[in-house]
Amino acid sequence: MIVTIIGLGLIGGSLSISLQQQGLATHRIGVDLSPENRQQALALGLVEEVSTDLGAAVSRADLVVVAVPMDAMLTVLPQVLDVVDQQVVIDVGSTKSMLLAAVAAHPRRGRFVAVHPMAGTEYSGPEAAVAGLFEDKTLVVCDAGQSDADAVTRVEALFTRLRMRIEHLDAGAHDLHTAYVSHISHITSFALALTVLKKEKEEQQIFALASGGFASTVRLTKSSPDMWVPIFRQNRVNVLDVLDEHIQQLQHLRQLIDAEDFAAVYQQIEQANLIKKILK
Amino acid sequence: MIVTIIGLGLIGGSLSISLQQQGLATHRIGVDLSPENRQQALALGLVEEVSTDLGAAVSRADLVVVAVPMDAMLTVLPQVLDVVDQQVVIDVGSTKSMLLAAVAAHPRRGRFVAVHPMAGTEYSGPEAAVAGLFEDKTLVVCDAGQSDADAVTRVEALFTRLRMRIEHLDAGAHDLHTAYVSHISHITSFALALTVLKKEKEEQQIFALASGGFASTVRLTKSSPDMWVPIFRQNRVNVLDVLDEHIQQLQHLRQLIDAEDFAAVYQQIEQANLIKKILK
Repeated sequence: MIVTIIGLGLIGGSLSISLQQQGLATHRIGVDLSPENRQQALALGLVEEVSTDLGAAVSRADLVVVAVPMDAMLTVLPQVLDVVDQQVVIDVGSTKSMLLAAVAAHPRRGRFVAVHPMAGTEYSGPEAAVAGLFEDKTLVVCDAGQSDADAVTRVEALFTRLRMRIEHLDAGAHDLHTAYVSHISHITSFALALTVLKKEKEEQQIFALASGGFASTVRLTKSSPDMWVPIFRQNRVNVLDVLDEHIQQLQHLRQLIDAEDFAAVYQQIEQANLIKKILK
Repeated sequence: MIVTIIGLGLIGGSLSISLQQQGLATHRIGVDLSPENRQQALALGLVEEVSTDLGAAVSRADLVVVAVPMDAMLTVLPQVLDVVDQQVVIDVGSTKSMLLAAVAAHPRRGRFVAVHPMAGTEYSGPEAAVAGLFEDKTLVVCDAGQSDADAVTRVEALFTRLRMRIEHLDAGAHDLHTAYVSHISHITSFALALTVLKKEKEEQQIFALASGGFASTVRLTKSSPDMWVPIFRQNRVNVLDVLDEHIQQLQHLRQLIDAEDFAAVYQQIEQANLIKKILK
């Protein structure tokens, strides 16, 4: 199977590695606007060839993976579908409603399967690509009824080979759920870093004390604005909804601590501890 | 050196392991109110003997480590000092101002060195104790001028052998800085868990999608209220200060997203990214 990967970053690159390791890709063509990314991807062996000719790279492929930031996705995915014949096309995007609306009326819509592998790291670019990123993670397939049945079957078989669990959600539910389990984590992490960085201007010693707990909580702060700003733009309504809920929870804890109602703070922490039962 | 460890939890237990592995402790006596903790600590080899006789266990020791939650610390540390002769006593507590005020006038104050190893995990109890917890981390020594010089020298030499970096801070600065790099991380983590758990009542599928980013951000949510409520109580003023700053940062990001000022959101994320230069 010839695979064309458009966007040679963390997700596109990691998927390329996995498809090759599982013997699913016989030849991989990489497309990227950045000459540095193309060169690095070749040097790292993420693809066998690179191209800037999107049409030709799509025409030669059996599977096309569009792994660009969500703002570029809105223009690149329709361009890909314009030249698609019987190929299967997937995105790997973090928001779905706006993207699926953008291609809803496209004559080749059926060849496109919207998927979101719930996996990533705080790093970006070709050198961030790693083997095994998708194993034991969830792949969300969105609005599968809008895709040709053969395309859905092929895509699900492929990600099952990469040891992913398949979940089906409509685009609206996907965007709501990811706001809660992914997008908000990034916002709180950015806000926490900004809080501490602001203080650090006054207090030089503060970071000497930072240990593992802090590092873990702000890990996502290293994430790229090029990836995350388009996500916040496209999932704005859900992100605002969860941000309001989160600010309310923080204000509630603040009020309890201010009022020295530590019995209630204890109960809130016990309640939060329940997440142990849910997360590994 | 005979070491008496009062409080056989994560920190007391891990310190006991490290002192033994470095050949610094020849005999370790564990004191804990909980029969389960005493039994587990013996079974796990964290100590050679256990005792419920605080006075005798302190009298026999060369070094006394008080590693109980901060509320208990306020009563246990004076009790320990009451029976101390030439022993050296350390706490390992997360807040300092209230504790140091509580023993300021004690006739044996000089034998006590206030230290805070900036290391931990989200787990608690004897079974959470691990080797190597303190290596390459920072030990904060507070108000060292209030301790006998020989006691400070011995304690610093000991933690240097455990490969810790020594930093000196007064108690007030310590409590301010830890509010920023430790206490707030726990509160945001608890609040994020509460946010998502509340939503999950309505939306069953939400956790199927949770991946590494979410797990990392809420890791600290597993932390024990028995440890953290006393910290929030004793460091209430600083915790409220940093909470206010953090809520303000979140509200600012919320307002920018609401107003669709994504150029400004981009700048905020770039600003937050600067933490990369500071944290490893």
